Amino acid sequence: MGYYKLDEGKAMAYVKEQGFFPQEAKLQAKEIGDGNLNLVFKIQDAESGKSVIIKQALPYAKIVGESWPLSVGRTKIEADALEVQNRLAAGLVPKLLHRDDELALFIMEDLSYLEVMRQGTIKMKKYPLFAEHISTFLANLLFYTSDLYMDSKDKKELVKRFTNPDLCQLTEELIFTEPYYDAERNVINPALKPYLEKVFWKKSNLFLEACILKYKFLTEAQSLIHGDLHTGSIFVGENETKVFDTEFAFVGPSAFDPGLLIGNIFINYVSWSGKDEKPEKIKDYRQYLLTTVNELYTLFEKKFIDNWDKDARDIRARVPGYKEHYMRNMFVDTIGYACMAMIRRMHGLAHNIDVDGIEDLERRRDVQILVLELAEELLLSRNKFANINEVTGLVKDRLF
Amino acid sequence: MGYYKLDEGKAMAYVKEQGFFPQEAKLQAKEIGDGNLNLVFKIQDAESGKSVIIKQALPYAKIVGESWPLSVGRTKIEADALEVQNRLAAGLVPKLLHRDDELALFIMEDLSYLEVMRQGTIKMKKYPLFAEHISTFLANLLFYTSDLYMDSKDKKELVKRFTNPDLCQLTEELIFTEPYYDAERNVINPALKPYLEKVFWKKSNLFLEACILKYKFLTEAQSLIHGDLHTGSIFVGENETKVFDTEFAFVGPSAFDPGLLIGNIFINYVSWSGKDEKPEKIKDYRQYLLTTVNELYTLFEKKFIDNWDKDARDIRARVPGYKEHYMRNMFVDTIGYACMAMIRRMHGLAHNIDVDGIEDLERRRDVQILVLELAEELLLSRNKFANINEVTGLVKDRLF
Repeated sequence: MGYYKLDEGKAMAYVKEQGFFPQEAKLQAKEIGDGNLNLVFKIQDAESGKSVIIKQALPYAKIVGESWPLSVGRTKIEADALEVQNRLAAGLVPKLLHRDDELALFIMEDLSYLEVMRQGTIKMKKYPLFAEHISTFLANLLFYTSDLYMDSKDKKELVKRFTNPDLCQLTEELIFTEPYYDAERNVINPALKPYLEKVFWKKSNLFLEACILKYKFLTEAQSLIHGDLHTGSIFVGENETKVFDTEFAFVGPSAFDPGLLIGNIFINYVSWSGKDEKPEKIKDYRQYLLTTVNELYTLFEKKFIDNWDKDARDIRARVPGYKEHYMRNMFVDTIGYACMAMIRRMHGLAHNIDVDGIEDLERRRDVQILVLELAEELLLSRNKFANINEVTGLVKDRLF
Repeated sequence: MGYYKLDEGKAMAYVKEQGFFPQEAKLQAKEIGDGNLNLVFKIQDAESGKSVIIKQALPYAKIVGESWPLSVGRTKIEADALEVQNRLAAGLVPKLLHRDDELALFIMEDLSYLEVMRQGTIKMKKYPLFAEHISTFLANLLFYTSDLYMDSKDKKELVKRFTNPDLCQLTEELIFTEPYYDAERNVINPALKPYLEKVFWKKSNLFLEACILKYKFLTEAQSLIHGDLHTGSIFVGENETKVFDTEFAFVGPSAFDPGLLIGNIFINYVSWSGKDEKPEKIKDYRQYLLTTVNELYTLFEKKFIDNWDKDARDIRARVPGYKEHYMRNMFVDTIGYACMAMIRRMHGLAHNIDVDGIEDLERRRDVQILVLELAEELLLSRNKFANINEVTGLVKDRLF
């Protein structure tokens, strides 16, 4: 019968039909999607408390409307990626319970008892196990889907299977292209516009670095990446970390995932300059964020190297010096992609609440400029940092 | 009826059936393949003189035998690549006349009135238009199939369509892996073996560079490359240049094609040290080879940049400095791949007649060592050359 768009009633009928709940169950359904590309329903049996999540792709981007068609085939890619992630990082992603590629939907476990990390970090919440968990997710996904581990032919099959043109194009345009000129889709704080026009859009040395990173994103097929790993794509709790929303998955540069994540943490770090919190509380939380970045990247590197030492299949991967070369490039590119994430969230199409929660537009602008300037400095000096501690050290020097 | 292997009789019946010749024509057929992976038949009508070439993929590598199975689907890739090349570099590749993916064959124009360039260069032949022609082939193919020109989605389709796991794996193993240890498939001049064991296989700094290039080959999806562009894959005449045998085509590093070609020319350059020719003749031919390399690379760069200036679609590609960055990387990697080609032809599985034509094994060894040492020096210093003239200058300094 082909694709049809779910509403709450149809969603409840569908999960019953699939046997997730008895026919007589009294279900409640709610559309809880806050993303741009999909419908997300939480379906719950009021009596038993049991619940599941249905995610269905829309044939267009919600934020823009029907004028921007997108293939619903991306749900197949997301479900495929979720399967790979469940295999390589079990417990750190939602369990996949059911998929229906024709309806462009899948059903997964309900994790809404956890908090989206972005919501927590804007309230200064701390997550003691986050660095430990996310570093495992990154190290396993990025190593075991690379040529260091995979059979050459299987890797090529992986590239083919995860070809994701629509969502890659979104990233190419929204992250790497449009923030660097006065593009129509940019969403610009009017108070920031003069800075963009007089300063930011004239920085051709910065554009060059953005361009170099764009072409790496376009051509570097290293690992099956999550593709959109910001703090809004992670559920966190005291003892749990669950990465979700992996519809941007494709085989791309391994540094992209840790980069986006670190960039988003840095945005939160800077955002406190525009908020009315006590200086001691801000200092304490900022220190927590820097420690988190240090830990997550250091642990990520350590675990990636452990995987390499244990499981690298290609004999060339054991040549002295190659591991150091690889880790170094990944580190430098991680900082590069972090800066790309920081910049695009200030005046590109999609912002985030860390900064846009600052209601006064002039105050928001001041924070946006701080983020843009910090990103610029990190981007242009990324080759000079010896390790992540030097990066967070510079951030702390500039602003604490 | 599926795949069946042609012999001369079946090949003649097939071309008649396809209408290339009348049923009553008196055809002659000859298997002329000297490659490892295919059958190649020349079919000629003795009366009219008209002839065509049929190329059919074997389900295994001829050089190894049936123990090494290969997918015959690669003929589809070769025919697809030939279509793209005919579009982007018309007149510089054979015309594709017919294809039959089920039989894993295609029919193309007969170019056997031309000479394979390797056969010419071992006889010191000169080709005045070669640099001009091959630079157009390279500049058009490598630019117009890259992200600099192509729509992002079309490019991803191209990557998918030209996924070529079998033949890429051959390159990965035979060029980038096996020459660097005492691998079973290596074909080693017994007189060379002590040098490999005592010297070459201990050079871990050289292995590191080979490894870096291997991973670029594995992950860098820049342009639809020929994939095996050596002097045995090019027909040349006084006024014509035709690139053939493109079954290794895939979307890979753009530097790979010019690199392999230059490496093979350098092998011919060194090979004269093992041959009984008059020194003046050798000097004259060597100067011709160096001039050819200078011209072909300089013209390639110029034409690639012309294409860029005229046709780059991505607005980011016009950011000041990016073109220089791209051209520089392509140049440095070209030298790297040239060295990979030089090394693998000395003691890997597939050699070439330039050096293996030297019958005395000790004399051949001396030339092989010259090639290996030259490759090593170029490889380790490739970042320091400002341009191709400095590369050929070093070659001339070492040996003339």
